[in-house]
Amino acid sequence: MRMHKRKHLAERVGVLENTLMFRPENLVINEPVFLEVGCGKGGFICAHAEKNPTQSYVASEMIENVLILAAEKAQEMNIQNLRFVAGNFLKTAEHMPDGCCKIIYLNFSDPWPKKKHAKRRLTYKSFLPVYKRLLAEGGELHMKTDNRDLFLFSIESLSQNGFGLKNITWDLHNSPFCENNIMTEYETHFSSQGLPIYRLEAFPL
Amino acid sequence: MRMHKRKHLAERVGVLENTLMFRPENLVINEPVFLEVGCGKGGFICAHAEKNPTQSYVASEMIENVLILAAEKAQEMNIQNLRFVAGNFLKTAEHMPDGCCKIIYLNFSDPWPKKKHAKRRLTYKSFLPVYKRLLAEGGELHMKTDNRDLFLFSIESLSQNGFGLKNITWDLHNSPFCENNIMTEYETHFSSQGLPIYRLEAFPL
Repeated sequence: MRMHKRKHLAERVGVLENTLMFRPENLVINEPVFLEVGCGKGGFICAHAEKNPTQSYVASEMIENVLILAAEKAQEMNIQNLRFVAGNFLKTAEHMPDGCCKIIYLNFSDPWPKKKHAKRRLTYKSFLPVYKRLLAEGGELHMKTDNRDLFLFSIESLSQNGFGLKNITWDLHNSPFCENNIMTEYETHFSSQGLPIYRLEAFPL
Repeated sequence: MRMHKRKHLAERVGVLENTLMFRPENLVINEPVFLEVGCGKGGFICAHAEKNPTQSYVASEMIENVLILAAEKAQEMNIQNLRFVAGNFLKTAEHMPDGCCKIIYLNFSDPWPKKKHAKRRLTYKSFLPVYKRLLAEGGELHMKTDNRDLFLFSIESLSQNGFGLKNITWDLHNSPFCENNIMTEYETHFSSQGLPIYRLEAFPL
């Protein structure tokens, strides 16, 4: 879907200033959070935050026009415990303290299928020390995707670079992990076509 | 390959009595060992034991005629630190103390491809508590196979039943784990055909 380019951006941003940040240095974290890297239109993280109003949530997304939709969704749902940060995640991470994340979610990340773009995949080895630094004691990274190649790549990359893996499934919607699963927009779309969803949990070793 | 049925078994076994056991109760373990479940003709475990003469090794194999070949190989190589146990592994395990294994190896196990035979796969969930009990503190289970379906099954089974996974590769012979790899007879055969070898390490959580 093509997004309209920053439609009425100024006005829309105005009413969101407490929850939507375009400067990562404005993100102040004083308590452990749940973080989604690449939240897209925010269906997953909004539902998660709504379900757990006493927890704090942060969502990062590079594509601003998509992130605005997510922030507007949170506003419509009257969610108070979720903040959105625009821009490159690595820049955002620089403003996040060590051990501040209970869980980091990677949901349906861009697979960057071409080999020359492998470094952009969110499970490429250069990202992993950043997740490791951000994770609290006992913290975990949870990934799900419809893209088999990205999933196999991620298993190799994580498991060879300081992460242990557990609770892996090749078919989330026919697994024990389905019960508490919160669907993303992509997931609803893909699984309605009968395609399997892959999922893993990773933890620093 | 069809094996000749217990050819001259009595004579052959006679000279192997210190290393080849047909009664698991004769296996006495007084120090941590490296264990291979399903050693086949013994190429892997013989090479491993020869390389590390100060360590102790145990190999289990159900098919007696194959196991005899393995034991004879060890004898020819003059290996003193390796014992072979015939019969069902679960029976053998009953005679092994808790925490006696440094590493348990599952190499090119029978994939039992039919769903109705899934319970016979050595990574089926019913085997996992046995491995867990046998593994020493810091012990690991190392698996390799050419069978993709068995590998994917094993990743799910292990990771959902109390094991963490690390150092997974979809192509052992083009991975960082190739350097210290000891080839099995099957592995030599399959990899000479250009087929990838899958490998993982699992550890109790």
